Amino acid sequence: MRSFLGRDILSLKDFERHDYMRIFQVGEELEPYARDRQNGELLMDKTLVTAFYQPSTRTRLSTEAAMHRLGGHVVGFSDPRMTRAGDFYQESIKDTVRMLEYYGDVIAMRHFQQGAPHEAAKWSTVPVINCGDGWGEHPTQVLIDMFTIWREMGTLDGLHFLLVGDMRMRTMHSIGYAMSKFDISATFVAPPEMSLTEEFKEELLSVNLVFDEAETTEEAIADADVIYMEPVVQADYTRSRVEVEEDRGLTPAAYRVTREMLRDRAKSDAIVLHSLPRMDELPTDVDDTRHARYWVEAYNGVVIRMALLALILGAAE
Amino acid sequence: MRSFLGRDILSLKDFERHDYMRIFQVGEELEPYARDRQNGELLMDKTLVTAFYQPSTRTRLSTEAAMHRLGGHVVGFSDPRMTRAGDFYQESIKDTVRMLEYYGDVIAMRHFQQGAPHEAAKWSTVPVINCGDGWGEHPTQVLIDMFTIWREMGTLDGLHFLLVGDMRMRTMHSIGYAMSKFDISATFVAPPEMSLTEEFKEELLSVNLVFDEAETTEEAIADADVIYMEPVVQADYTRSRVEVEEDRGLTPAAYRVTREMLRDRAKSDAIVLHSLPRMDELPTDVDDTRHARYWVEAYNGVVIRMALLALILGAAE
Amino acid sequence: MRSFLGRDILSLKDFERHDYMRIFQVGEELEPYARDRQNGELLMDKTLVTAFYQPSTRTRLSTEAAMHRLGGHVVGFSDPRMTRAGDFYQESIKDTVRMLEYYGDVIAMRHFQQGAPHEAAKWSTVPVINCGDGWGEHPTQVLIDMFTIWREMGTLDGLHFLLVGDMRMRTMHSIGYAMSKFDISATFVAPPEMSLTEEFKEELLSVNLVFDEAETTEEAIADADVIYMEPVVQADYTRSRVEVEEDRGLTPAAYRVTREMLRDRAKSDAIVLHSLPRMDELPTDVDDTRHARYWVEAYNGVVIRMALLALILGAAE
Repeated sequence: MRSFLGRDILSLKDFERHDYMRIFQVGEELEPYARDRQNGELLMDKTLVTAFYQPSTRTRLSTEAAMHRLGGHVVGFSDPRMTRAGDFYQESIKDTVRMLEYYGDVIAMRHFQQGAPHEAAKWSTVPVINCGDGWGEHPTQVLIDMFTIWREMGTLDGLHFLLVGDMRMRTMHSIGYAMSKFDISATFVAPPEMSLTEEFKEELLSVNLVFDEAETTEEAIADADVIYMEPVVQADYTRSRVEVEEDRGLTPAAYRVTREMLRDRAKSDAIVLHSLPRMDELPTDVDDTRHARYWVEAYNGVVIRMALLALILGAAE
Repeated sequence: MRSFLGRDILSLKDFERHDYMRIFQVGEELEPYARDRQNGELLMDKTLVTAFYQPSTRTRLSTEAAMHRLGGHVVGFSDPRMTRAGDFYQESIKDTVRMLEYYGDVIAMRHFQQGAPHEAAKWSTVPVINCGDGWGEHPTQVLIDMFTIWREMGTLDGLHFLLVGDMRMRTMHSIGYAMSKFDISATFVAPPEMSLTEEFKEELLSVNLVFDEAETTEEAIADADVIYMEPVVQADYTRSRVEVEEDRGLTPAAYRVTREMLRDRAKSDAIVLHSLPRMDELPTDVDDTRHARYWVEAYNGVVIRMALLALILGAAE
Repeated sequence: MRSFLGRDILSLKDFERHDYMRIFQVGEELEPYARDRQNGELLMDKTLVTAFYQPSTRTRLSTEAAMHRLGGHVVGFSDPRMTRAGDFYQESIKDTVRMLEYYGDVIAMRHFQQGAPHEAAKWSTVPVINCGDGWGEHPTQVLIDMFTIWREMGTLDGLHFLLVGDMRMRTMHSIGYAMSKFDISATFVAPPEMSLTEEFKEELLSVNLVFDEAETTEEAIADADVIYMEPVVQADYTRSRVEVEEDRGLTPAAYRVTREMLRDRAKSDAIVLHSLPRMDELPTDVDDTRHARYWVEAYNGVVIRMALLALILGAAE
């Protein structure tokens, strides 16, 4: 079995069932640090380098929190504007990485360009974790999703997923690969201009994933064990809050999941995942239904990222 | 006596005399870490989460420095632009806090909206420290002010305060509540458009604070044991340094405290506090008079914030 | 011999040969932390304060990484916009430093204004490290350069340096002082508008540095043991990547060092240093020649900054 020691986490394409299970198992071993709110000393002698070329909250803070929970150190940048503003845009990934590799022991990178973490891994002598690369992948997010489903449903086999939202998003790519390793079938619901690319459909078919597409959440929700959501209305950071608020409520009903829909049509044990932040596709009155599992994802995020860091850095095997 | 373990620090409204004294006492117990410049290990197993929705220097760095002095870890953001730019403005406090609560053991929040830390505390399973909320309160700043006065004057009773500046500021609200718990009387001096709101005046009267208002610092300074200042000319960050410098000197004499005024009119043991940064309301030639006590506030800031963190996180009681 | 304990590192003007050697020696003693990628506990009880008034990547991250490698803590700001935006521009260095000094045990400052770290050191009770001050100096960068040359060439005496680029840059000032302490002669190549100032030439002559000036790299490269580069085309952060890319290739041939030039004209053991990031003055096909030594500088940066921090903070002597 391939060891995680020194391994780059770039894509879920090459993750096998036992890779998921190994991470989940180490996650449960390390979970007491998160549950009991007690930082340990497992990675006290290690430094995490965060290289976030795009703003992020959950992914960056969750990775850093995991490192701190294990007693580790963190250096890095959370926005390229904090660096020699724009230099990063003008400096090659190679030049940047051949600096960053000496500042710590593992690099967590988010980049606006697909493939940037792969290029980084090519040059780095320390492992690279892809924390989201453009339209590419978001492997750690989906490891957290899969762990959450595994814990909440007790299994990853024999499930049907309903995936709603912008299918071009990187999480959708990563979960496509993840689903194909388990006995999971899927229904995709997306606006036509945001639907699965033909290329990605081919790829999913070639790995024997059983899936179909539906036009509305409502017609597809009855069969779903897991409802996996991404926004279709993206936040627009160039406008004021008031302007954005006026635009809220713009998600067409076909791509929303409501409390009524869950009550009237969903399986009684269906669970809803959303990596957040949300726009109006997931109204807040879903929060206190038994279906909501998106809160626990922040907690699981720390658990799984502790597991990844410990495995990659040789503090667990 | 109410324990500080797990307690939110949102307002000084509900702080009793013994609460102040407990914090001051723990401050003095922990002070050697600051005085001897030696980080300890008291909070080594804990993580502070900083959620600063508005830029800050003193409050954020001082809180982080206190955590580090006790050996603790820090994660967070110091500017919402560093996060998924603007997401925070569009994401509810609830959604954000139900993520942040898993990243550490106490949340220190500054927010441009009054009441935001209270909303955060409603949802968080870890304690929330209000580090300034819009026009609301700034309880930790005023705990530091009161500690400074207590140490410098030897008591908090039998004193007369002269408060100068924009009375709508959050520190003015917090110190209003603080004064009312001690045998302190007050004179307020502010430009008419920045004077105490009728509502806040009612509140101060209802808790039996003895206070009056004066038109100029000069006429009121003779009775003051403590001169407590806030700027009335706010820094304007939308303009260049040169433009701002040209505008300097704009604070009307009535709201300034000068070296001459202190020499000619103030009590010989009156002390001047200012939470800084300052504009021109407090000329730099006051710095080397015996009245200046604003420098020691940065030091006391670390001492009191160590005490608060240790108390809230159960490392002191 | 003057001790480094509590010493400000503001300029290389007053650095003697034994100062360089002491730092190099402590660097080699501490190097195992970097080489073996194991954070130690030497500075566990200390906090580094970073005060970066200008964005930086290498200098800031390298200093922070060194502190973490020795188990230390870090607080600070990496961009004044993260603070009360612009306040720093309006607040005096004195006011700022008399706050920062209480937040840690050593201050690392980059500032857009020449002399700002000197002003900070005047008021601070903790030592100040100049991490680049406007057109002033960049002493730590040049300590790393000299260490790199010392390790790669085995000596700092009997060498000829070719310095190419904008001679008004702070690194050029620091390396001028550094060269004058060793048996080093120099040739400077710069565009006329970026050549050595008369004042600085006088200064170099007064300390007996033997140097001349040449018009092109090509004519001067044959004698060089060390080729030391700075860009002459500065990155322009006000423009888009595309616009900047269109402008690339603008460095005149006279100020570039190419693979062909190194093959045809340079000494076979000449080494090329560049503090990076680079524009087009140093094409990437030089990277895999035996002359390139700019990659190892990032590694040496952590080594030398560990040595400086340990010496200044009394963990080495």
